[in-house]
Amino acid sequence: MMDSVRWLDEHGRIRNAWASELAGDRGCLRLLDQTLLPEQRTYIETADPVVIYDCIKRLVVRGAPAIGCAAALGLAAVARRLEYRDRADFVAKVRETSGYFASSRPTAVNLFWALERCTAVLDTAVDVEDLRDALLRTALGILDEDIEMCHAIGCHGAGLLAPGCGVLTHCNAGALATGDYGTALAPVYTAFENGIRVRVYSDETRPLLQGSRLTAWELQQAGVEVTTICDNMAAQVMREGKIQLVIVGADRIAMNGDTANKIGTYGVAVLAAYHKIPFYVAAPYSTIDAALEDGSGIPIEQRDPAEVSCGMGRRTAPEGVDIYNPAFDVTPHGLIAGIITEKGILRPPFETAIAALLRRE
Amino acid sequence: MMDSVRWLDEHGRIRNAWASELAGDRGCLRLLDQTLLPEQRTYIETADPVVIYDCIKRLVVRGAPAIGCAAALGLAAVARRLEYRDRADFVAKVRETSGYFASSRPTAVNLFWALERCTAVLDTAVDVEDLRDALLRTALGILDEDIEMCHAIGCHGAGLLAPGCGVLTHCNAGALATGDYGTALAPVYTAFENGIRVRVYSDETRPLLQGSRLTAWELQQAGVEVTTICDNMAAQVMREGKIQLVIVGADRIAMNGDTANKIGTYGVAVLAAYHKIPFYVAAPYSTIDAALEDGSGIPIEQRDPAEVSCGMGRRTAPEGVDIYNPAFDVTPHGLIAGIITEKGILRPPFETAIAALLRRE
Repeated sequence: MMDSVRWLDEHGRIRNAWASELAGDRGCLRLLDQTLLPEQRTYIETADPVVIYDCIKRLVVRGAPAIGCAAALGLAAVARRLEYRDRADFVAKVRETSGYFASSRPTAVNLFWALERCTAVLDTAVDVEDLRDALLRTALGILDEDIEMCHAIGCHGAGLLAPGCGVLTHCNAGALATGDYGTALAPVYTAFENGIRVRVYSDETRPLLQGSRLTAWELQQAGVEVTTICDNMAAQVMREGKIQLVIVGADRIAMNGDTANKIGTYGVAVLAAYHKIPFYVAAPYSTIDAALEDGSGIPIEQRDPAEVSCGMGRRTAPEGVDIYNPAFDVTPHGLIAGIITEKGILRPPFETAIAALLRRE
Repeated sequence: MMDSVRWLDEHGRIRNAWASELAGDRGCLRLLDQTLLPEQRTYIETADPVVIYDCIKRLVVRGAPAIGCAAALGLAAVARRLEYRDRADFVAKVRETSGYFASSRPTAVNLFWALERCTAVLDTAVDVEDLRDALLRTALGILDEDIEMCHAIGCHGAGLLAPGCGVLTHCNAGALATGDYGTALAPVYTAFENGIRVRVYSDETRPLLQGSRLTAWELQQAGVEVTTICDNMAAQVMREGKIQLVIVGADRIAMNGDTANKIGTYGVAVLAAYHKIPFYVAAPYSTIDAALEDGSGIPIEQRDPAEVSCGMGRRTAPEGVDIYNPAFDVTPHGLIAGIITEKGILRPPFETAIAALLRRE
C-alpha cells in the first residue's frame, strides 16, 4: 500500500520480510513524512536515533500500529551501526535507545509493546551479529504481523460493504496508520480489490485534519472514490441517504465494548444511531484493554489550544479566548453495531464476545 | 454593539436613524469586513454596486438580518448616485440593482424581503429626489427595526438562561450577523446586562470558522465568557454536562417550523436531542417563509470546494479530491424546543403557533 513504514535494504529495496542478504550495514528505516501531506510526498530514510525519536514525536509517523513498527525497525537500524566494546556494552546501548524511543510518545501503548518485544530478544544469542539479526527479524516480524492483521480485518469487514454503498469514516485509520491496509479502511481496500466499488466520505477531523490530509489522500492514491466533508456535514450526508455504514478505528477498547477514539467519533456514533446507520469499530484485538471494565476509566487527554486557535498556521480564534481541546472521546458500546478484529466481527453483547475472544487467545 | 452594518452620512458620522441632513451625495454603506476577523478590524465604505454585491457574496457582511440591512442601505447608497434620463429610467435602474443584489446569495430570504420592501417605495413619489429619500428612509427603517428586533428577542430569550448555565451556539448569529444584539446571542447579551453570567460554547463552524473567528471574538469584546470548540467536540461537551441549552440562528423557517441554518446545525440538534438538551432557534419572524409548507422546499446552496480544501490559505485536502460543501442544512421541527422571535417564544406545534403569529400581523 502506501509504504508509510518500511525497511530499506542495503540495495535500496523496500523489504517487508527479513532475508539473509540484509546483513550489510546500509539497511535503514524508511518513513513517509505525514506532516507534509497532502502538499508533499517526502520519504525520510534514517538510522539515526535522534531523527527516529523526532519522527515519532513530531507525528511524521502516526497511528498506533505504525508507531510500533517504526520504533521496532528503527531500533534494528540503530543496532546495525552501534559501536560497542563487548556484548554487554552492545545490549546496554540497545536498551538505552529503546528507552529513548519509548519516551517519544509517553501514552502510546503499541510503542512500548513493540520495543519490549524487540529488547526481549537481547537474551537469545551470544554473538552481537546474531543479536542484530534477531532484532531485525523481530522488527520485520512485527511489521509482517501488522500487515496480516490489516488483511484479516479487511476480509472480515469487506462482507459488510455492498457495491455502490457509502462509508463514512473519521480521522485516519488507514494505510498511513498501520503497516499496510489500515484498520477502518481495510474493509474498503479489500472490497476494492474484489471489484466492489464503494464511496468513502472522509470527515476532515479537526483540529489536525487527519481525515482530509491523510485519509482522502491515501484513498485517492489507491483509486478509491472519496469525498471530503467537514465534520459538521456528517449529519447532512447521512440524512441525504449517502451513508450506509460508518467504520472508525480505535485507540482503546474496554471489556464492555466502550471505545476511545479520535475526538468526534462519539458524535458520529450518535448521528449514525439517529439515522439508523450501523456504526462499526475496526481494530486489532490487542486494542482491547483487559484491565478496563468500561470506558469511564479512560482519562480524556487535553491537547494544546493552539491546535484549534492557530489552525493551518493562521489565527482562527481571537487571542486569549478559552479553548477546549480534548484529543479523543469514548463511544458507549450501545451505539456500536460491531467490532471488526483480525479474529472476526464481535457483536453485542460485547462483554460476552470480548471475554470469549480473550479466553481463546 | 459591533456596528457591523451602518449608514455613513456625508459628514462621515455613523447613523442609524434617517435625518434630513443626509441629503448630500456622500452618504454610503459602512461594513465591518468580517472575512478579516479576528486578525484585523477593517471597515469598507462604499456606494459601488459591484463592491456591495461582492461584499455580500464574499461574506464581508453575513448573517441573514445583516445582509438584509446591507442590501437595503446599499441600494439607497447606489440610488443616491444613479445617473438617469427620467423617473422611469431611475426606477428601472434601481430595480435592476435590486435584482443584482438579490442574486448574490440564493438562500437568504431576508435579502429578498429587504430589497422588495425598498423597491416597493418606488411607486410612492413622483420626484426622483423624493424616491431617493424614501429608499434611504426605508433602509434605515429596516436597520432600526432590526435593532429593536434584536432587543426584543433578547428579552424573550433571556428568561431561558439560568445563572452559570452553558449555552452552545453554532456559527454566528450575534451582533456581527444583525444590526445590533444578534438573534441567537441576543438572550446571552440581555442576560449579561441583567447581571446573569453564562458561558457560551462556540462551535468553530467549518469551513469558514464563523464560530471561532466571529462569535468568540464578539463575545470576548463584550466581556461574555466564551469557550471555542471544534465542531466535532459538541457531543463531548454535551456528554460532560457542560451544556444546558442550545441556541442557534436561522436563515429560513418553514410554516411547520423546519429551519434552515448554517451547515452543522442539524447535527447539533440531533446531538442535543440525544443528550436531552433543549434546542432553540432565535430569529425574527420575517425569517418565516409563508410560501414554504415545510423544509423540503428549501434550496441548499453548494459553495466552492476550495473553502474546505484550502482552509486558511493552505491546502488541507489533496488536489483533485471530491469535496461536498453544502452551506446549510435543515433541522426538522421535531428537534426544536422553541423559536424565539421578537413577538415571543413559539412552541410546538409550530404549524399552529406560526399560523397564529402571522394572522396577528
